[in-house]
Amino acid sequence: MIKVATVLCCFFISIGLNAQTDEAVLKKIYTTSLTNGKSYDWLNHLSIQIGSRLSGSLGAERAVTYTKEELEKLGLDKVWLQPVMVPRWVRGAKEYAYIETAPGKTNTVNICALGGSVATPSLGIKANIVEVKNFEELETLGKANVEGKIVFYNRPMQPDLIETFNAYGGCVNQRYKGAVEASKYGAIGVIVRSMNLRLDDLPHTGSMTYDDMPVEKRIPAAAISTNDAEVLSTMLQLDKNIKLYFKQNCKQLADVQSYNVIGEITGSQFPSEYMVVGGHLDSWDLGDGSHDDGAGVVQSMDVLRLLKESGIKPKRSIRVVLFMNEENGLRGGNKYAEEAKQKNENHVFALESDAGGFTPRGFSFDCNDANYNQVLSWQQLFKPYLIHYFEKGGSGADVSPLKTKTNVLAGLRPDSQRYFNHHHASNDTFDAVNKRELELGAATMASLVYLFDKYGVK
Amino acid sequence: MIKVATVLCCFFISIGLNAQTDEAVLKKIYTTSLTNGKSYDWLNHLSIQIGSRLSGSLGAERAVTYTKEELEKLGLDKVWLQPVMVPRWVRGAKEYAYIETAPGKTNTVNICALGGSVATPSLGIKANIVEVKNFEELETLGKANVEGKIVFYNRPMQPDLIETFNAYGGCVNQRYKGAVEASKYGAIGVIVRSMNLRLDDLPHTGSMTYDDMPVEKRIPAAAISTNDAEVLSTMLQLDKNIKLYFKQNCKQLADVQSYNVIGEITGSQFPSEYMVVGGHLDSWDLGDGSHDDGAGVVQSMDVLRLLKESGIKPKRSIRVVLFMNEENGLRGGNKYAEEAKQKNENHVFALESDAGGFTPRGFSFDCNDANYNQVLSWQQLFKPYLIHYFEKGGSGADVSPLKTKTNVLAGLRPDSQRYFNHHHASNDTFDAVNKRELELGAATMASLVYLFDKYGVK
Repeated sequence: MIKVATVLCCFFISIGLNAQTDEAVLKKIYTTSLTNGKSYDWLNHLSIQIGSRLSGSLGAERAVTYTKEELEKLGLDKVWLQPVMVPRWVRGAKEYAYIETAPGKTNTVNICALGGSVATPSLGIKANIVEVKNFEELETLGKANVEGKIVFYNRPMQPDLIETFNAYGGCVNQRYKGAVEASKYGAIGVIVRSMNLRLDDLPHTGSMTYDDMPVEKRIPAAAISTNDAEVLSTMLQLDKNIKLYFKQNCKQLADVQSYNVIGEITGSQFPSEYMVVGGHLDSWDLGDGSHDDGAGVVQSMDVLRLLKESGIKPKRSIRVVLFMNEENGLRGGNKYAEEAKQKNENHVFALESDAGGFTPRGFSFDCNDANYNQVLSWQQLFKPYLIHYFEKGGSGADVSPLKTKTNVLAGLRPDSQRYFNHHHASNDTFDAVNKRELELGAATMASLVYLFDKYGVK
Repeated sequence: MIKVATVLCCFFISIGLNAQTDEAVLKKIYTTSLTNGKSYDWLNHLSIQIGSRLSGSLGAERAVTYTKEELEKLGLDKVWLQPVMVPRWVRGAKEYAYIETAPGKTNTVNICALGGSVATPSLGIKANIVEVKNFEELETLGKANVEGKIVFYNRPMQPDLIETFNAYGGCVNQRYKGAVEASKYGAIGVIVRSMNLRLDDLPHTGSMTYDDMPVEKRIPAAAISTNDAEVLSTMLQLDKNIKLYFKQNCKQLADVQSYNVIGEITGSQFPSEYMVVGGHLDSWDLGDGSHDDGAGVVQSMDVLRLLKESGIKPKRSIRVVLFMNEENGLRGGNKYAEEAKQKNENHVFALESDAGGFTPRGFSFDCNDANYNQVLSWQQLFKPYLIHYFEKGGSGADVSPLKTKTNVLAGLRPDSQRYFNHHHASNDTFDAVNKRELELGAATMASLVYLFDKYGVK
C-alpha cells in the first residue's frame, strides 16, 4: 500500500511540478524579455545604424555581418551563413509625378516605383488615366478604352475587416498583377493606390510581377499615396481628360550573392529534430524596415537567447533563421527548405514573425488537429500575458516551403491595426516600434518554442 | 398539434433570430464605427482646435460648449449641462531645474510641477538631495538625513508586469503622497521620477495631495523625466553633495463653475432605468489629452450615435456623461452620483473609457456573479472583433461613485503597453491616437451597452 501511495504521490507531484514548471518557465521568459531583453537594442542597430536592407544592397550585406556577429556572441552551438543568390533591384533617383489638368497646370503626386518595375523612358511618360477598381472593370473597358493610357487601380483596403491582413489580401492583386493585366489591353503604365488603411501622403512600395512578359513589353508600375489616390479620383470625375506624368529610374540588375544567417542550439535528446524560429533580414528601401521585418529578426534572435537565459536546454535542435529576400523573391526561404530536404533534415516545427513588432495577440497555425488541440491545451499558460489568439491559418512566407503533412508551422500574430500605416513605406522606422510590445512578442515566441520542444509535435 | 408545432416553431425561430440578431447587430455597430465613425473627427477638434482642458481653464470651458453642441446635433432625446464647482490650479510660467555638481557647473533637468503643488519661492529652491525608493526608506533615514533637503522618489514602474496599470498602481503613491510624507521629516521640496515605463526626456504631471497640511507648511512637488531620474541617481552615487535647483510658479485659485455634459436617449420600456457611458472631459495641461481622456469622451459620444445609426431603440435610458474634473478632484463624478441619488434615479449600469484610445481588448467589471456570468455568455459574440478580456476588476474613477450592490460598473480595457509613455505628458497628443483603434473601442463599448440594454442587469 505504501508503495502504491508513494507511486501515486510521485505521480501527482510530478503532474504538479510539470504544471508549475511550465508556468514558472513562461514567467521567467517574459520577465527576462521585459527586464533584460536584447531585441530592442538589436533593432536600434539594424534600423538606425544599418537602415534599409533591400536584397543585394549594402544594407543587406551589413545586416548579414552584424546579425551573424551578434549570434556568435550568444554562445550558441553553431552559427553559419547559408549562401543564396538574390535578385538586385535598385530604385535609382527618386520618382516624380504630377497630375496635369491643363497645359502648365500641375499638382505634384507622392509616388514610388513598385519593386521589380521597369523604369519609365528617361523623360517619363504622360498620358490620360483610366481608373478601375478591379480586373473585371478593366476587362469590361477593354482595349478601346485602355490602350495608350495609364491604368489607375484604386480599390481601397476594406476598413470594416477587423484583421487588417485580410483587407490587404483583398487588395494586393492590384499591386502584384496590375501591370500584367493592364498590359493585355495596351496600357503604357500602371499606378496603384497604396495598400494603406489610412489617408496620408506616403506611397507604399511592394513586389509586383511581369510573369513571363518579354522585357520590351514591360510597362512601369508605381504606387501613389492614399491622399493622392483620392484627389486623382475626384479630379477624374470632374474631367476625364486630365493627364498623369510620372518618371522613375529603377532597374533590375544581375543576381548577387547573399546569405541566410543561421544559429543553432543543438538538441540534447533529439538533435536531428529541428525547430526553426525566424524572420526576414531584407526589407524594402523606403523606411528602415523596423516593423517589416526588423522586429521579426530581433525577436527570433532573442528567442534563442531567452531560452538560454531561462536555463532551458532544448531536447530538439532549435535554429534561428534570418531569411534573405522575402520581399522580392523568397529566395532565402526556398533555399533553406531545399537544403533541408537535400540533407534529409526533419523539420518538425517552424515559427515566423513577420507581421510587425506590435503587441502580440497569439499565433496562427498550419498543422493537423492533434497538434492544434495540443496548442489549445496550453491556452491557460498564455492567459497571464494576454495571449488569446490561437487559430488555424497561415504561418509565414519564409517558413511555408518547409511544410510537410505532419509538422507544425506557425506565425506570430501581433495586433495588426497600425501595421499597414507603415508597411513598405518611409515611416516603417524605429520610432514606430514600442520596446515593450517588441519584447512581449519575443517572449511569446520563446514560450511556444519551449512548449513544443518539451512536449513534441504529435 | 398544429398549434403546438407553430408555437415551437416560433420559439425556435425566435431563438434563431435572437442569436442571429445579436451577431448582426454587433456586425452593424462595428462596421458603422469603422466606416462611418465620428469619434476621430470629434477627437481632432477636441485635441487640435481646443487642446488641453484642465479643470477651470478656457480649454475646459470650450470643450463643454463644443461637446454639448455636437451632442445636440445627434437628435438625442435630451442634452443638458450639470453644473459643478471645480478646483482651478494653474501652472504659470514653465518650470526650470538643474543639477549643480559644483558652483557654476549645472545640468538642466526636464521638470514639471505636480498638479496641486504650491510654487517654489520666487527665486526657486536649491538644496541637497536625498534619494529614496519608498516611504519606508524615508522613515529609516529620518529627520536627521532629510531635513532641509529635497526628497527624490525614484522607484521605477515595474517593467515585468504585463498590465501596465498595475505597474502604475505600484508607483503612484510616490507622486500622490510624496510631499506629505517628506514634509514629516523636514524636506523642503519633492521631486518624483515620472510614471513612465520608457526612458525618455518628458516629465509627467499628475495629481498630488497635501492632505490637511496648513498652507504655509506645504512644500513644492514636481516630476522629472525618467532619463533625468537615471542621470540624477547616478550622479548622487558619485557625489552625495550635488544640489538640485528648481523653480515653479503654479498656483491654486478659487473654485470655478464648470459642468458635466450629458445626453440621453430615453428608454422605450424602462425609461427610469439608466445606463451610463462616459469619459472625462478635463485633461492635464501638458499635452492635449487625446488619450487621457479625449478618447473616452469621443468614444462615449459615439456609443449613442452608433446605437441610433444601427437602428437600435434602447429599452432603458442610455446616457452619455462627459465628466468634468476627473484629474484633480473627481468633482464631476461625485456630483453626478450625488444628484442621481437625490433624484432616486436607478442606475443599473455604467461604463467608463479612461485607459487610452488603443486597440480594445475587453472590459473589467465591478458586479455580482450573475451579471459577470451573463457577460461570459456573450464572449463568443465578441470573438470576431478580437475582444477577449472579460475580468472582474475596477471600472472607472468617474463612474465608481455610482456603485450599488446590484448594478454593473465596467471599464473599457484597451491594450495598455503604450499608455504610460503618453500619460499626463506633453506627448499625449492627437497624432498618438490611431483612428481604427479608437473606432474599435467605440464599437466595443456600444456592443456591451446594446447587450446589457437588451438582456437587462441581473
